[in-house]
Amino acid sequence: MHSFIELSKLFEEQFNIRHFPLQPETLYDPAQYILGIGGKRIRPVCVLMGNQLFDEIDPDAYHAAAAIELFHNFSLIHDDIMDKAPMRRGMETVHTKYGESTALLAGDAMLVKSYEYLNKIKPAQLQKVLYLFNNTASAVCEGQQLDMDFEKREIVSMDEYEHMITLKTSVLLAASLRLGAILGGAGEGNQQHLYEFGKNLGIAFQVQDDYLDAFGDPGKFGKKPGGDIIANKKTFLMIHAFETAKPGQLGELKLLIKNSPANKVEKVVQIFKECKVDDWAQQLKNKYLQTALKHLEDTAVLSVRKKPLRELAEYLMKRES
Amino acid sequence: MHSFIELSKLFEEQFNIRHFPLQPETLYDPAQYILGIGGKRIRPVCVLMGNQLFDEIDPDAYHAAAAIELFHNFSLIHDDIMDKAPMRRGMETVHTKYGESTALLAGDAMLVKSYEYLNKIKPAQLQKVLYLFNNTASAVCEGQQLDMDFEKREIVSMDEYEHMITLKTSVLLAASLRLGAILGGAGEGNQQHLYEFGKNLGIAFQVQDDYLDAFGDPGKFGKKPGGDIIANKKTFLMIHAFETAKPGQLGELKLLIKNSPANKVEKVVQIFKECKVDDWAQQLKNKYLQTALKHLEDTAVLSVRKKPLRELAEYLMKRES
Repeated sequence: MHSFIELSKLFEEQFNIRHFPLQPETLYDPAQYILGIGGKRIRPVCVLMGNQLFDEIDPDAYHAAAAIELFHNFSLIHDDIMDKAPMRRGMETVHTKYGESTALLAGDAMLVKSYEYLNKIKPAQLQKVLYLFNNTASAVCEGQQLDMDFEKREIVSMDEYEHMITLKTSVLLAASLRLGAILGGAGEGNQQHLYEFGKNLGIAFQVQDDYLDAFGDPGKFGKKPGGDIIANKKTFLMIHAFETAKPGQLGELKLLIKNSPANKVEKVVQIFKECKVDDWAQQLKNKYLQTALKHLEDTAVLSVRKKPLRELAEYLMKRES
Repeated sequence: MHSFIELSKLFEEQFNIRHFPLQPETLYDPAQYILGIGGKRIRPVCVLMGNQLFDEIDPDAYHAAAAIELFHNFSLIHDDIMDKAPMRRGMETVHTKYGESTALLAGDAMLVKSYEYLNKIKPAQLQKVLYLFNNTASAVCEGQQLDMDFEKREIVSMDEYEHMITLKTSVLLAASLRLGAILGGAGEGNQQHLYEFGKNLGIAFQVQDDYLDAFGDPGKFGKKPGGDIIANKKTFLMIHAFETAKPGQLGELKLLIKNSPANKVEKVVQIFKECKVDDWAQQLKNKYLQTALKHLEDTAVLSVRKKPLRELAEYLMKRES
């Protein structure tokens, strides 16, 4: 059995190749570029972790893991176009470096490539794997659309936001674990528990991400703090503040959003504190984390085999950057 | 056995449903919109024709046909974004009507949906079908990239242009026929002949399309004639003119391209005529058509069963609009 770190290395060794033909380089170099700027490879490692929970790692799990990582990078390329994001992981985004048309097409080619990897999986498992992968891919598209829709709305409810975040980010983590479990021969019950573990862990991670944007240590947090506040993004924190602020605070919050003064971040964080949004967010994160861990506990395999998944949860929850 | 027209109706009856969930409508209404504005459904009907060449139509052929049509529409949405095309089939393009971000995402969702249809195919055939579909999808992306690359270049050779056109438009027609043949239990030789029939027919069709832009009857040709000339598009005709024009004609052609005077279309067509580009194009189209028909002839099934495919070739080659 391999630790989280060992699995990351094993995956990286297999994945660190050229996945695309040499020609046309105008299409495939951009696709290789985003794969080359790294990322933490958490999702594909989840496939491997979900798989080794039940047996030695099946070679097909590496194919599914590669498909998941390619899908994730496809979605990053296209999301960055839609969000007009200039930078990712400290590097130029694909559309900034190569132009929007090429980025769009390189994303398409990457999505197709993910299906090429899935098609290496043994036929007996292929249909089940594709079914989950397709459903997940559709959900991720829906999540991105809802995110864009919410930007145009003044009010978004907590339920709506949680639903969007679940689709946009959590289901891919959940599906990664479940894909590994399917390929490991897991029964339906265990598949479901692992899916829920991943889903709840993903939401806990997002709560933390939203929290760190407002309350993170600027020296440790990777992104510039307050970015969500400056961009008027709906976050777990902002939505809770809207739902709990007193009339005076609510009026001030709306003015800050409307006028974006120079001290906007400081003022919004102050209202967050007055509304105890920070304590609430920590509790919410813990609620999702505990739900996740309960599902891991309920997964019917020897406790010792779950160690890498507990390590993953710790790693994601201790993250400050 | 069904005629080309009958198969078109049969496909339309099955395909004319809502393929996407109702929510989020901001994502899925745009996807339904492009499916609703029609098109000739030639590619999915090719799947059915390739299938019935060998037996009664297999229900899986309808799944493959739907996947092909969804893929084709995905590529139209994304190509229209890249080409900044305002209209398609006399209607607003998806990005014009719904915005670029939504069009991008609706295209993605449509590509995923095509894999959902493929995943309805019986497991014994799934891997072979996916292999061909994935290769074709990659080729179409490569073709679109080469097309964009060629726009930036002054000189494109005939071989390069033919290669691009093959990838961008012909392989999907070829693969459609072959998918049907695979699902009909055809052997490798017959699959290959049908693929070549479709590929050569597709190129013949493109030669004709390029020809009609310059020499078509404005009253009959669906698009505004001269569009390729106005847009300085490399076409079979323009590339041949560049390769055969005398120095004086070549100089004039380059000036017309550079300066785009009011009488540009008329002047370019005149040079085309002087270089006998019109006769050459008709011969080239016939060369590809005859190659296509030879492959159909060499397909080892009763000649009477090939009638719908001969009808297709006639239909595509008689097209004036």
